[in-house]
Amino acid sequence: MILGQNQYGKAENRVVRITRDGTTHHIKDLNVSVALSGDMEDVHLSGSNAAVLTTDTTKNTVFAFAKEHGIASAEAFGIALARHFVAGQPSIRTARIRLEEYAWARIETPGPRRHSFVRENQETRTAQVTFDGTDWEIVSGLKDLVVLNSTDSEFTGYLKDRYTTLPETRDRILATRVQACWRHASADADWDPVYRQAREHLLGAFAGTYSLSLQQTLYRMGTRVLENCPGIEEIRLSLPNQHHFLVDLEPFGLTNDNEVYHAADRPYGLIEATILREGAEPRIPADMTTLA
Amino acid sequence: MILGQNQYGKAENRVVRITRDGTTHHIKDLNVSVALSGDMEDVHLSGSNAAVLTTDTTKNTVFAFAKEHGIASAEAFGIALARHFVAGQPSIRTARIRLEEYAWARIETPGPRRHSFVRENQETRTAQVTFDGTDWEIVSGLKDLVVLNSTDSEFTGYLKDRYTTLPETRDRILATRVQACWRHASADADWDPVYRQAREHLLGAFAGTYSLSLQQTLYRMGTRVLENCPGIEEIRLSLPNQHHFLVDLEPFGLTNDNEVYHAADRPYGLIEATILREGAEPRIPADMTTLA
Amino acid sequence: MILGQNQYGKAENRVVRITRDGTTHHIKDLNVSVALSGDMEDVHLSGSNAAVLTTDTTKNTVFAFAKEHGIASAEAFGIALARHFVAGQPSIRTARIRLEEYAWARIETPGPRRHSFVRENQETRTAQVTFDGTDWEIVSGLKDLVVLNSTDSEFTGYLKDRYTTLPETRDRILATRVQACWRHASADADWDPVYRQAREHLLGAFAGTYSLSLQQTLYRMGTRVLENCPGIEEIRLSLPNQHHFLVDLEPFGLTNDNEVYHAADRPYGLIEATILREGAEPRIPADMTTLA
Amino acid sequence: MILGQNQYGKAENRVVRITRDGTTHHIKDLNVSVALSGDMEDVHLSGSNAAVLTTDTTKNTVFAFAKEHGIASAEAFGIALARHFVAGQPSIRTARIRLEEYAWARIETPGPRRHSFVRENQETRTAQVTFDGTDWEIVSGLKDLVVLNSTDSEFTGYLKDRYTTLPETRDRILATRVQACWRHASADADWDPVYRQAREHLLGAFAGTYSLSLQQTLYRMGTRVLENCPGIEEIRLSLPNQHHFLVDLEPFGLTNDNEVYHAADRPYGLIEATILREGAEPRIPADMTTLA
Repeated sequence: MILGQNQYGKAENRVVRITRDGTTHHIKDLNVSVALSGDMEDVHLSGSNAAVLTTDTTKNTVFAFAKEHGIASAEAFGIALARHFVAGQPSIRTARIRLEEYAWARIETPGPRRHSFVRENQETRTAQVTFDGTDWEIVSGLKDLVVLNSTDSEFTGYLKDRYTTLPETRDRILATRVQACWRHASADADWDPVYRQAREHLLGAFAGTYSLSLQQTLYRMGTRVLENCPGIEEIRLSLPNQHHFLVDLEPFGLTNDNEVYHAADRPYGLIEATILREGAEPRIPADMTTLA
Repeated sequence: MILGQNQYGKAENRVVRITRDGTTHHIKDLNVSVALSGDMEDVHLSGSNAAVLTTDTTKNTVFAFAKEHGIASAEAFGIALARHFVAGQPSIRTARIRLEEYAWARIETPGPRRHSFVRENQETRTAQVTFDGTDWEIVSGLKDLVVLNSTDSEFTGYLKDRYTTLPETRDRILATRVQACWRHASADADWDPVYRQAREHLLGAFAGTYSLSLQQTLYRMGTRVLENCPGIEEIRLSLPNQHHFLVDLEPFGLTNDNEVYHAADRPYGLIEATILREGAEPRIPADMTTLA
Repeated sequence: MILGQNQYGKAENRVVRITRDGTTHHIKDLNVSVALSGDMEDVHLSGSNAAVLTTDTTKNTVFAFAKEHGIASAEAFGIALARHFVAGQPSIRTARIRLEEYAWARIETPGPRRHSFVRENQETRTAQVTFDGTDWEIVSGLKDLVVLNSTDSEFTGYLKDRYTTLPETRDRILATRVQACWRHASADADWDPVYRQAREHLLGAFAGTYSLSLQQTLYRMGTRVLENCPGIEEIRLSLPNQHHFLVDLEPFGLTNDNEVYHAADRPYGLIEATILREGAEPRIPADMTTLA
Repeated sequence: MILGQNQYGKAENRVVRITRDGTTHHIKDLNVSVALSGDMEDVHLSGSNAAVLTTDTTKNTVFAFAKEHGIASAEAFGIALARHFVAGQPSIRTARIRLEEYAWARIETPGPRRHSFVRENQETRTAQVTFDGTDWEIVSGLKDLVVLNSTDSEFTGYLKDRYTTLPETRDRILATRVQACWRHASADADWDPVYRQAREHLLGAFAGTYSLSLQQTLYRMGTRVLENCPGIEEIRLSLPNQHHFLVDLEPFGLTNDNEVYHAADRPYGLIEATILREGAEPRIPADMTTLA
């Protein structure tokens, strides 16, 4: 038997970092998962842990680094951790750090004390940093960004086969829960501003596109990000089509003029695609957004 | 054997109502659960459905009412439904409508077209309307409003017994996921403004209280709502204490000056209480917030 | 303002107790939530913790009691804890312990060593023990017991109103996720055998009833338990009607002779009722099964 | 901009198939997700749906096939669907069908009628079928198989660095929630017996291994399956280390002789690896088990 790809580490370290600037506090709230790989034949075959930095140690490192290095951004924190693990032990060849960042807004209060926060937004910011001692791969993203257009979406002209019953429509709700991952050209970027820009362009393209299909909307969202964020090479989107069915009110003597919808759970359409800048190599795995 | 309290209906009808005002659209997004009770001995004992308005019909009614009556607010929609069910069939004596409302913000786009939305906030607005043909009980609320103070919280002077090991602290993070229900004095109120006020006062009291215990913070949150919203008689709060443990960094030669915390999942403290206006009768069940 | 009903404690203490009988091990796996109430005016009004046994101490007590008293059953463990909290501090007047128990089956292996287990069943056993220093209330139950009859269910003869469209049916799937709570006459019972009997009779009555409505099936399930378990005074059932819709295959030239169904998520019918032994007082709150 | 990998289809079609053999009924309960890819440039770039078989049609096909072809096993059903989609439309080049299968046990009742079922087991069976018109890839698996050894696990001899604090242990609980995927050498196998064998060997190897590390246990589980199931080429396992921490009872004057544990949620170790038969090509993606 052959040992193939393998990795290990501590997943879902929930670290909160408070920085005090006088009576003004700042908060960073992350969920950090470490996955290490390298010379791990022995531990699998014989159970010898001599090459294993324990998952408990990787957890301790996450919390210690929050103190020693601070958390400038999810990506910067992941970079510091990945570099440390690969540099720290010869048996560790590759480190992959996955991060979720939760957004907090200030609760405004009278007076100078500013240490109160409320969680904001439905979506979660994500990042994945991979380092093999030579090359960096930084993928940022978001998940659970829920958006809806109440018109300017149609769906017509599709293939029909024996099992097709769907009527064409010129006016429907288009709603989705955006999962998106974008890969940066370098490991040195202004992570927070780029994140805000990418998010804004995803929203803008979704809202501004007259949609003939969710694939088209997806493609516009991806290209808009690539056009406006020069440091991004590749983006993958996973868009569940959250169906809103027009309710048939005729049995009750009522006309439903695109007013009343039933928001369905399952099944749902699922549209996924990668868009690349010309010349870029595709490196985001097909399932990465689904995982997000 | 005796048949005791019983109720039935269709739960979790997900209705989305779009209202078009020229090119500006408005959206209401609800999850509506109907529970009816009345003369239901026969269906339980013999299986005769002669007194049963089917759960399918209650579902149809929710969607039809979204068209016929519109959705001014969760509470107003619940009132219209409850009145209909009790008035509509002699066998239905009481109707209880539970509603969740999901908040959407506009996505700002150039041009006059305004039909694009993004889900906002972590919390969900809730309402419960009960009508027995004579009396109304309207309870509004919210759930999953996540808040955090990074200081101005201490915990000292508590009872010690054989199993007590907790050290006292003069500075800790206080974080919770607010579940709140408040009962209105009448069935006629400005539901949306009152909701916004109650939410604002919950946040204000949480942020503005120097906390000696989560019970004290809870009591201030409840009294602040009652003091500022004269139409509210009673409020119940359920506040899980989302523990943020200061990480011991000493083994790594580091000082943790209230900077790095581990956000724990389970177990968690759970603090629950009802606050009433003087003379008000307690009617919100103890578990209502937990359900919310 | 008046402080109404209030309670506090540590929720969701996940305690696993291993008992070694030579090379044969036994496992008990519980989720224990403590809620205490009593003389708690001060902590709410002034923040004084002088009457407060901390939630951390209640957590420690759960784990210490697993050692000192063992875990004979969920109910017995809850009784020991409730008695301790009420007896231990004058300020604690009432203790309510909620427990979930997770079932494990042995993995059979050759040789005498028996310490390997696999989680079994979909359902979770539940218990709630309440003690006020004088009276005990013991409620046992289960949640998430998913059952299905593929025939012997019909639904006809119901009320019709303007919003009724449902066709009658003489043959449908009846499926539900059983939530059940039953209250014992005394605080002294053979908790494990009674649990197994109640579960068996719930299954037997569900399977053995030709159903004219889910209410009728519910009533039979409840009465069957009361008839066969003399120590049970009252039972409450909450049965979501997990709709399985016959798929219309006619557009494809196919006949669907009750063969192919779509299992829907939302909305769902929700049927809830309490059945009492003659003379018994109703004490299980209407929402208790929903919470379960 | 370049369109990279893309796919679409209807996800989570919940199909239940009843087969009647006199008064004995049989049930198959699946969750089926379809993902198609092919000549889809146009729909992304211009919104033309001329090459698109709609997700609604793929849903209809799932339900129609349950009637026309029956459901012999998850894998066989996925194969029939994948072949149909690729053969049916020139624009569809590849079909990937993901399936979950839910297990039901009979409820035993007196008499000849056998149509009552109860959901069994914690785990879910999974399958993924991919077909590109020429080659088949069939991956079977399971998720959420929760297992625990209460002894015969130690953890010693690992690397120490500046952040290591974990003490070595010679006796600990080892518990995990198994996610496993195995790839078959051919598209023609006895799917149900092979599934039962693989599951049995996973349990047997977990229970029978004296564990020096979770990696070693994982490797034994994988090799045991490959050794006993000749048609399986490759297996990937994802094993979260569900930590059970020995509770420190010394402050209470008690000795905890490996009896009382706290079952923790997060963070958790996560151990993942692929094991291959000699000469087999690795084709299961690293994240496939995480997705399962």
